[in-house]
Amino acid sequence: MTGNADTPLEAALAQARTQAPAVEARLRTAWADTPLAAAGAAHDAAGGKRSRVRLTLTAAALLGCDARDAEAAAAAVELLHNASLVHDDLIDEDATRRGVPSVWKTHGTAGAVLLGDRLLAAAHAEAAATGAPRELVQALSATARRLVDGVARERAPAATAPGDAARDAYLDLARDKSGALFAFAVDAALILAGVPHRERHVARTAFEALGAAYQIGDDLADLDGHKLGRPAGGDVAAARLCAPVAALRALGEPATVAAFDRFLAAPEDAEIWIARLRGADVRAEITGWRDGLMGDAASAAARLRPELRAFTGWAATAIGGPAPSEEAPACAAATP
Amino acid sequence: MTGNADTPLEAALAQARTQAPAVEARLRTAWADTPLAAAGAAHDAAGGKRSRVRLTLTAAALLGCDARDAEAAAAAVELLHNASLVHDDLIDEDATRRGVPSVWKTHGTAGAVLLGDRLLAAAHAEAAATGAPRELVQALSATARRLVDGVARERAPAATAPGDAARDAYLDLARDKSGALFAFAVDAALILAGVPHRERHVARTAFEALGAAYQIGDDLADLDGHKLGRPAGGDVAAARLCAPVAALRALGEPATVAAFDRFLAAPEDAEIWIARLRGADVRAEITGWRDGLMGDAASAAARLRPELRAFTGWAATAIGGPAPSEEAPACAAATP
Repeated sequence: MTGNADTPLEAALAQARTQAPAVEARLRTAWADTPLAAAGAAHDAAGGKRSRVRLTLTAAALLGCDARDAEAAAAAVELLHNASLVHDDLIDEDATRRGVPSVWKTHGTAGAVLLGDRLLAAAHAEAAATGAPRELVQALSATARRLVDGVARERAPAATAPGDAARDAYLDLARDKSGALFAFAVDAALILAGVPHRERHVARTAFEALGAAYQIGDDLADLDGHKLGRPAGGDVAAARLCAPVAALRALGEPATVAAFDRFLAAPEDAEIWIARLRGADVRAEITGWRDGLMGDAASAAARLRPELRAFTGWAATAIGGPAPSEEAPACAAATP
Repeated sequence: MTGNADTPLEAALAQARTQAPAVEARLRTAWADTPLAAAGAAHDAAGGKRSRVRLTLTAAALLGCDARDAEAAAAAVELLHNASLVHDDLIDEDATRRGVPSVWKTHGTAGAVLLGDRLLAAAHAEAAATGAPRELVQALSATARRLVDGVARERAPAATAPGDAARDAYLDLARDKSGALFAFAVDAALILAGVPHRERHVARTAFEALGAAYQIGDDLADLDGHKLGRPAGGDVAAARLCAPVAALRALGEPATVAAFDRFLAAPEDAEIWIARLRGADVRAEITGWRDGLMGDAASAAARLRPELRAFTGWAATAIGGPAPSEEAPACAAATP
């Protein structure tokens, strides 16, 4: 079934591919043939890379977990992810996702709230269907609460002092908002495999850092207008705590930061600030954060058993994507 | 600790009272000291009767469940209930709850969505903290999905044909929207106590009927303007599927129902229809439904072990409240 795989990682990736359709079928049952079927189909139409499903299935295959348990855990992770997407689009008033109208746009506040709730509840039922119901449900629930807390803090972009505190607050946010879910995607497999707490903690550290690095890449894509159907700098215009906002507050002169904080309190004429945030200094700062996170992930990975070390290395490329320096836009920086 | 209780039910009610503060403490941890603390406190200020907490704790005490398990299960039930209240107020644009501003009014769409999500996730963690994590989490999740489906169907008041189909659709809705949560409040204790599936099913039937009867009382209170801070007939004005709406569609002449369905599709000038729904014929129809549900509950209760039978009888009074005929308003019915 796994073909002529040369390494355990290749064999696990191949097995994950064969299991992906079973996970898709589980995901559909969370909304198909229910009063939320139309809203669920609308969200499903936006698609998704299923990166987290691949993480869980691959880690589980590497560790020899029961296949049905792995599929339920992968479904739990992906359902939580999609619940948060549906609710976040409503909160952020993002009209599209991957170029497709958002659920709240097509099915209203009611459709988005109820579909997200249904997916969140279904996620917990999937976690409970495994061989480690208590541990997996509690880890899933804790992850969901970290996502919620991250989104809540995202809406207070100037809650901390400028300087290092601004950087630390952003990195905490990125760990909560994106890192926690990547870490749980892997931890779910480690829980099922009965991996000791100490090694689970190390693996979570690695994937939390990778997830935070992924978030930085996502924030830069937003700034640069590389997100399908989203305006360039949309996060900044909405005064959300994102990497460029945090970087300017971390490195800017006091007078600039004071002016920027006034903008964040009452966002108007965002274009001038978006241009400023595209400056080389901001990008260098952000790139430094991302490099630091990738280094943290590599350090943690070195302490994992060989197959998980190889898996983390693969994930660093698969999740992390190209280095931020390669994404720099051609436009010149302007200073307001 | 339980005083001079004369019957097992009185002893269980007394024990439930002593456990209530521990449940309150668990409920607070779902939002206190988090980024959602202010939103959580705003919701908490609206208070609540904690009927479902009392059901779970009392049933658990009657059956000799572990006290900590009972408190976790009661917290899970109440957290789910409150998650649905916070999200429903947002969906229904209800500006107040028990006379206090709703969370979405004070903390926006973001505050309401995120607080509800946090409570829903915390509910599942509480269920997983008990001695029956898989069964309790799956029952909780299934209940959450029934609530969601009920609210979704509430927004399509004329989805069925008139006549008996309209009545049946409403009773299904009332069972999903309110019955399921009362049934789960009791079933949670039965799960913890290891009560056989057959008896659990009978108990769920009884409490689902009581919960649906409670919903009918709530719908009548809305029609009659007996809900604090809510306009009389608010459900009708918003074209929600509620008992009076279903009753007119169940018993009305075809021409009246056709006109009413046009109103439900585009609600305007609701006053004339609210007055019509206060007619004696509609109230008699609804009273008949409620009597039928109370009869269903009594029939099911008769098949339960003695202590659960006594408990169901107590709950029928505690939950069901006065008979609907006693609540009839003084105003005369008008026909549009």
